[in-house]
Amino acid sequence: MKYIDKIQSPADVKRLNVEQMTEMAGEIRNLLINKLSVHGGHCGPNLGMVEATIALHYVFNSPIDRIVFDVSHQSYAHKMLTGRVGAFLDEKHYDDVSGYTEPSESEHDNFIIGHTSTSVSLACGLAKGRDLRGENYNVIAVIGDGSLSGGEALEGLDWASELNSNLIIIVNDNQMSIAENHGGLYKNLAELRATNGKCENNLFKAMGLDYRYVANGNDVNSLIKTFEEVKNISHPVVVHINTLKGKGYHFAEEDKETWHWIAPFDINTGQLKFTSDAENYNDLTATYLLEQMKADGKVCAITAGTPGIWGWTPSRRKEAGKQFVDVGIAEEHAVALASGMAKAGGKPVFGVCSSFVQRTYDQMSQDLCINDSPATILVLWASLAAMNDVTHLCWFDIPLLSNIPNLVYLAPTNKDEYLSMLKWSLDYKEHPVAIRVPVGNTVKSSREVPSDFSILNKYEVVHRGKDVAILGLGNFYAMGEAVAGLLKEKGIDATVVNPRYISGIDGALMEDLKDDHKLIITLEDGVLEGGFGEKIARYMGPSSVKVRCYGAKKEFADRYDVSEFFTENRLRADLIAEDVINLL
Amino acid sequence: MKYIDKIQSPADVKRLNVEQMTEMAGEIRNLLINKLSVHGGHCGPNLGMVEATIALHYVFNSPIDRIVFDVSHQSYAHKMLTGRVGAFLDEKHYDDVSGYTEPSESEHDNFIIGHTSTSVSLACGLAKGRDLRGENYNVIAVIGDGSLSGGEALEGLDWASELNSNLIIIVNDNQMSIAENHGGLYKNLAELRATNGKCENNLFKAMGLDYRYVANGNDVNSLIKTFEEVKNISHPVVVHINTLKGKGYHFAEEDKETWHWIAPFDINTGQLKFTSDAENYNDLTATYLLEQMKADGKVCAITAGTPGIWGWTPSRRKEAGKQFVDVGIAEEHAVALASGMAKAGGKPVFGVCSSFVQRTYDQMSQDLCINDSPATILVLWASLAAMNDVTHLCWFDIPLLSNIPNLVYLAPTNKDEYLSMLKWSLDYKEHPVAIRVPVGNTVKSSREVPSDFSILNKYEVVHRGKDVAILGLGNFYAMGEAVAGLLKEKGIDATVVNPRYISGIDGALMEDLKDDHKLIITLEDGVLEGGFGEKIARYMGPSSVKVRCYGAKKEFADRYDVSEFFTENRLRADLIAEDVINLL
Repeated sequence: MKYIDKIQSPADVKRLNVEQMTEMAGEIRNLLINKLSVHGGHCGPNLGMVEATIALHYVFNSPIDRIVFDVSHQSYAHKMLTGRVGAFLDEKHYDDVSGYTEPSESEHDNFIIGHTSTSVSLACGLAKGRDLRGENYNVIAVIGDGSLSGGEALEGLDWASELNSNLIIIVNDNQMSIAENHGGLYKNLAELRATNGKCENNLFKAMGLDYRYVANGNDVNSLIKTFEEVKNISHPVVVHINTLKGKGYHFAEEDKETWHWIAPFDINTGQLKFTSDAENYNDLTATYLLEQMKADGKVCAITAGTPGIWGWTPSRRKEAGKQFVDVGIAEEHAVALASGMAKAGGKPVFGVCSSFVQRTYDQMSQDLCINDSPATILVLWASLAAMNDVTHLCWFDIPLLSNIPNLVYLAPTNKDEYLSMLKWSLDYKEHPVAIRVPVGNTVKSSREVPSDFSILNKYEVVHRGKDVAILGLGNFYAMGEAVAGLLKEKGIDATVVNPRYISGIDGALMEDLKDDHKLIITLEDGVLEGGFGEKIARYMGPSSVKVRCYGAKKEFADRYDVSEFFTENRLRADLIAEDVINLL
Repeated sequence: MKYIDKIQSPADVKRLNVEQMTEMAGEIRNLLINKLSVHGGHCGPNLGMVEATIALHYVFNSPIDRIVFDVSHQSYAHKMLTGRVGAFLDEKHYDDVSGYTEPSESEHDNFIIGHTSTSVSLACGLAKGRDLRGENYNVIAVIGDGSLSGGEALEGLDWASELNSNLIIIVNDNQMSIAENHGGLYKNLAELRATNGKCENNLFKAMGLDYRYVANGNDVNSLIKTFEEVKNISHPVVVHINTLKGKGYHFAEEDKETWHWIAPFDINTGQLKFTSDAENYNDLTATYLLEQMKADGKVCAITAGTPGIWGWTPSRRKEAGKQFVDVGIAEEHAVALASGMAKAGGKPVFGVCSSFVQRTYDQMSQDLCINDSPATILVLWASLAAMNDVTHLCWFDIPLLSNIPNLVYLAPTNKDEYLSMLKWSLDYKEHPVAIRVPVGNTVKSSREVPSDFSILNKYEVVHRGKDVAILGLGNFYAMGEAVAGLLKEKGIDATVVNPRYISGIDGALMEDLKDDHKLIITLEDGVLEGGFGEKIARYMGPSSVKVRCYGAKKEFADRYDVSEFFTENRLRADLIAEDVINLL
């Protein structure tokens, strides 16, 4: 390495010439590939943005000038150029930085960002704040083409022209979302690329914005030239740069979808280091729905730009044909689309990660649930043990969804129960149904599973004991059984319940438990506040039965160790059994 | 009346000629103005859409062809033409229909819709459902220009071109949102109008859509001609019609903002029939913020298209100048904008109706709260006694917001406490603060109000009694005092608490109450599930103190009588006092 390991701040970038910066781009790519091969992370987005990041730091003066990276999954080169190259040089320091921008790491990071489509609005806010204070600096949003289809990004682009002051929006067009792009605006981007930015209709101009085009967005020289032209500009401008996703690593260039985010891999072969043959709920879901689609042309799977997270590989998508819809990153549209399809007699199944279902509360409430449209929503990866970046926590879906009227929110405890609920939901016409899909490797049921769930809020009493009842919801049912096992050793015959329904209380069962139970324990794989346990606590509140709820306390936990986190929240069978004995 | 009172279904419209339909348009306007003058409702949107609605029913075959009205606040003429004219002819029947489309009223209404920007996505869903079933009919979305700035509408427009089948999007361009439009796309609409739809950049074409322009959208003949051209079209098309909001009633034409939605009025003078001189929280808020703005150039109020609901009249907006920002209907952008402004040293205050804050969960969580940006959010009209249309319920904000980490959600109980909290929030830098603004006429405080709320979750114990503690949150604090008064008559000395903080529990107080209290009562002016009371019930769950929570049960209530609704939910001091006596 001649350059990158010596960069301590953007000032060091400004001392280099174009040739040196271009050489440094190669060094950055090597560091990226090395780290990713060991650590995993976002690959394609980072490889494509190397030159643009160098050019940004050459032309602008961060942190006085402020750069906001959309999703910020392309900010690794930015981290290297802003005093954090150590976290890419030495394996021991790989975890010193997060995978996203993080103001606590550096004054060059303006926001913690992990969800898509937010950068333009956040940058508008910085610009407006600057203007209110009468200050004078550049505000730059960097947004990928894939993020443009999100409602918040489009709202931001539309409003930006109201600013009448400096705002620079870099559209990093690598012709990909996580998977391929979907939506009419991508036809316009293609036309703009084909005409060197000169075609008749221009989405950005139609939104009142000035516009520049950079045909080779991986060429340091042309990037610098254009960035210098727009530096200190007096009004909002879009700089549309055409880049190559995955550039410099042939596997990532050739299979952009696989290499968007990648687990540790062998650099020479591109093969993952760790694979598993065990069946997981993602593959299971896609496989099962494909079968259903073949039997019934009305079944249709919907994704909002994330087919891979629930098993929809390119070949399965092809097999599903018109019965698979990717709306691009547009979760709000996905929910309304599902509602409309259901009202027209289709059987839509929208699969969405717990963290991203957060983008759809109003659509869930207004478009779907007020209309009681019988669509199926699969809430994926919903668990305290899923993603642990603060921006990707998957444990707020219970308070979000279970308090919406009309929605039947189900928590299966194993594979057989899940598939039975999914099958039932496809034909159920009374209400929309959401299913909190179990996580990890599939587990078979040891109990018989019903095929009909239309008697709502009827919990399954797996074992009727006395004194204490354990309500183990969904993923945590197994922990509930483990607690019961430990209590049995102490001579306590606990009642074990699989609640099945997150969105309602089994009043008859609760009344029955009052007769000979002193304590109810609730276990949920999510945040406590606004969740399932609190409903039980409220119901039992006026009685003399005590209730103790287990789940995670409300906080934005970040990159936590799952085992420590569970212990802190007393989410361990031994600790819970101990509490029960103390409470009885 | 020659025509309208004889229309029993769209078939009767099809029998008329253009001249007769034009005459009928006048009759419809008379009925609209008469009903609105007595009943109140959406005025401008309905008056502007009369001819287009007639033309739609002349050309298309509802209910086989399906029409989806955005917000559906322009659907009154549609109701008259689809068998419901009786609800406009006779004052006694005015309440037979809702102010929005309602499938339970008519097969011509496809969805219950009241929030903006949803129609395109819902229509896309109908179209996709139709295609999956191999059916063949027209799907028509009718969306106003004001609704176009909403993220869901833009997501829908972007995705629509993926359909490759029939979809007709009528853009009803009346050059207004509720107030004036804001955003770059409105410059494009103006250009399109100025060039008869022929200007270089075209937003709709840039989103991959076919396009037609109708210069006079209040002319039955040209509307019919264009609708006939696009009927049975094989691909998505936008029909951009230029209409006059409020057409036919000069007060509504001249002051479009006032007459968007109007309370009962005198037809001749245009004056409201019922006015009040009492101070309300809306005027109070705008007046107070204007003062703050004059003292501090960094204070900035933000609205998402609804300035009027919190006192921001045109003259106050003018006075605030650049310190007032209307982002148009774009709530997501508004939250991110506020976060950015706060990070750049501004003091943003985003005022948003409880029903519409629902559109911002992910922005609240990701853009605002993870970043701990010290913005102020005013949640307006949040009460069971606010709007009672099912689409506009204002009582789900507590489960939505109070379970987001980092957010400090406050519930003032009177005017002085509210202003003190608002003032404090402007300078507080630790966390974002949301305030649930009281509703109705202002009430002065009988207690001293602190100026500092930075010791979080410290409840105010207004009276320390024993046996029972009443936690009266925000608007319901007064009911708590009334309950205590009734209990006193029975010799019970209840503790009375003003919790102030919705988003956290005062653990020290709770522990203290355990000593000599047997029962805690919580009162909240919102839905019970996921709310404040449940947090108290969970906290006290493992103790022997009983908890009884009061609020509304989870349901989509519609057009309810407030007094009956409160009784049903036992939200009356006498009923609660009765319960307390039974529980003690």
